[in-house]
Amino acid sequence: MNELRKDYLLSRWVVIATHRKRRPTDLVKKNAAFQATKLSSCPFCPGNEHMTPPAQLVFLASDDGNIVKDKDTDGLRHKNWLIRCVRNLYSAFSPPRKGESFEEGKAIGHHEVLIESPNHDEHPAVAKPQQLIQVINGYIDRLKVLSSKPYVRYVSVFRNHGLEAGASLSHAHSQVIAAPMLPRIPAEELKASRDIHERNGRCAFCEILERERKSPRLIMENQSFIAFAPWASVHPFEFWIMPKAHASTFKDIKPGPVKDLAIIMKNCLGGLKSLLNDPPYNYGFHIGPNAKTSEFYHWHLEVYPKLTIWAGFEKSTGIYINVVPPEDAAQNLKKLMKSQ
Amino acid sequence: MNELRKDYLLSRWVVIATHRKRRPTDLVKKNAAFQATKLSSCPFCPGNEHMTPPAQLVFLASDDGNIVKDKDTDGLRHKNWLIRCVRNLYSAFSPPRKGESFEEGKAIGHHEVLIESPNHDEHPAVAKPQQLIQVINGYIDRLKVLSSKPYVRYVSVFRNHGLEAGASLSHAHSQVIAAPMLPRIPAEELKASRDIHERNGRCAFCEILERERKSPRLIMENQSFIAFAPWASVHPFEFWIMPKAHASTFKDIKPGPVKDLAIIMKNCLGGLKSLLNDPPYNYGFHIGPNAKTSEFYHWHLEVYPKLTIWAGFEKSTGIYINVVPPEDAAQNLKKLMKSQ
Repeated sequence: MNELRKDYLLSRWVVIATHRKRRPTDLVKKNAAFQATKLSSCPFCPGNEHMTPPAQLVFLASDDGNIVKDKDTDGLRHKNWLIRCVRNLYSAFSPPRKGESFEEGKAIGHHEVLIESPNHDEHPAVAKPQQLIQVINGYIDRLKVLSSKPYVRYVSVFRNHGLEAGASLSHAHSQVIAAPMLPRIPAEELKASRDIHERNGRCAFCEILERERKSPRLIMENQSFIAFAPWASVHPFEFWIMPKAHASTFKDIKPGPVKDLAIIMKNCLGGLKSLLNDPPYNYGFHIGPNAKTSEFYHWHLEVYPKLTIWAGFEKSTGIYINVVPPEDAAQNLKKLMKSQ
Repeated sequence: MNELRKDYLLSRWVVIATHRKRRPTDLVKKNAAFQATKLSSCPFCPGNEHMTPPAQLVFLASDDGNIVKDKDTDGLRHKNWLIRCVRNLYSAFSPPRKGESFEEGKAIGHHEVLIESPNHDEHPAVAKPQQLIQVINGYIDRLKVLSSKPYVRYVSVFRNHGLEAGASLSHAHSQVIAAPMLPRIPAEELKASRDIHERNGRCAFCEILERERKSPRLIMENQSFIAFAPWASVHPFEFWIMPKAHASTFKDIKPGPVKDLAIIMKNCLGGLKSLLNDPPYNYGFHIGPNAKTSEFYHWHLEVYPKLTIWAGFEKSTGIYINVVPPEDAAQNLKKLMKSQ
């Protein structure tokens, strides 16, 4: 008999297939997320900066070893960058022209691509921690800049890895979208966590953190973060990375925790890569969008490996079927953490 | 500038890419939903009935031309069936054993496969209308039987077409799942439509129907049904089939409307097949689960072609990006209806 589990906060049910569960080897993809086809014309590789719009942000290594923040101007493209962030040429959201508003059904906002490294294949699973720190600092910069726009209500920072997870280019990159309304999923999480906070006077996520830290779903922890497979994981090998210190957004995160985040991301994504032959995945940061949410919301990162297909049942009911119990997922990933 | 649209009922936003929209030819899959690999060992083909559990339901053609309803007994497997319905060997939900309950986190319920035809390739897009009528009558039977169980709260009837849409076997088949709780998506639809009914005294879907019938999103209509691309379509070429007469469930549908449903399903799915080279898709019936919902809920069928990928943004925010405006989808499908 399979198990039925409900999400910590959402009215979202998952059937956990304890009955006919799958082992990691059943889910290993034949092909790694990206085939080794490196295009000479990759628009994100050094030398091809002119193939993208001017960067809204570049980090440059200065001669004295410090990092300098700058941007491209229209004619100029910076060379020798560590990361660069450009407008997405296929933007879902665009800045408002005069008089355009969300209320009129316009998709106003921003849509940017954050190129994570000059090295085509420097994905987080294999990145130098120092490079991943720059990527996270880039996320923080874009989150700060975009969330300060008067027409922006929510900023989503996310990453698609592998063709099957929707990454059309294989050069290591993330994306940032600033939307003019509070989207459905954060809205539901915010409502549920506010309700719990009003009832118990405590942050729901701080309680989840305490519980999961002692559970068989814990993958690893360091000074600032824990990584665990959530109780009602929707995806096989799904895991969340959550800061131990309560904070609704990562805008104000300090250098120490940034480094700890880089290390736990690299370890967990590295574990996923070696366990399942570099599978496609998506990740997304969940954040509280404004100061009003600071007491009851708790930011975190959710990572969804793409190993199975959502079909007619999932799409028409919103119930998910997960063929790998999160306890098994965590134990398998944990073993790899130890050997790294 | 792209458009931002909200679902009729749900707080679900879709970016409609009017700005960089795609034509049908951009989305045609290279491979049809199923390659022409017909296994000699297909467990759903006639002669292989022993490869499945005994049928809970078979329709047999009797000598006088009538249809006889029966079931297999353990030793016997009926031959010469028109449709048969068996327990899914990889059940997500199972009937309760003594003392097992949903409250204890058991996935109690039912999970069945409805084999739609003895002919391996008789998918709805190409089925004889008479055969599709048997399939719909099979759905009605299973809905009636399963929703009468005391531990069942919701019955989902759905179909996965093509490997990429989650169909692991290519023989024409649908599935039926009976769940012990009201799932998330129907729960949200029910709440929203009940609220509207309380405010306006009218069924929200009857109003949608009136509006869409006169809109550029109409695909076709017959005496009992309309087919249209919904205002905030999540998927490119998504369409809904909705009965003109108000009813919360199709349990009590009469033979005339059953025939009209068979014809409109065949026409629309046939149009989708010829427009996009037999693309993978999922469909699911949305129904009111009990008599209490009869005034304000309105059953319908939602069809989701699988032509694009949900990535990190969709999965972490619940905002969708649709690269084909529903007006364009409807016009393209409509043209094919006329030529059929």
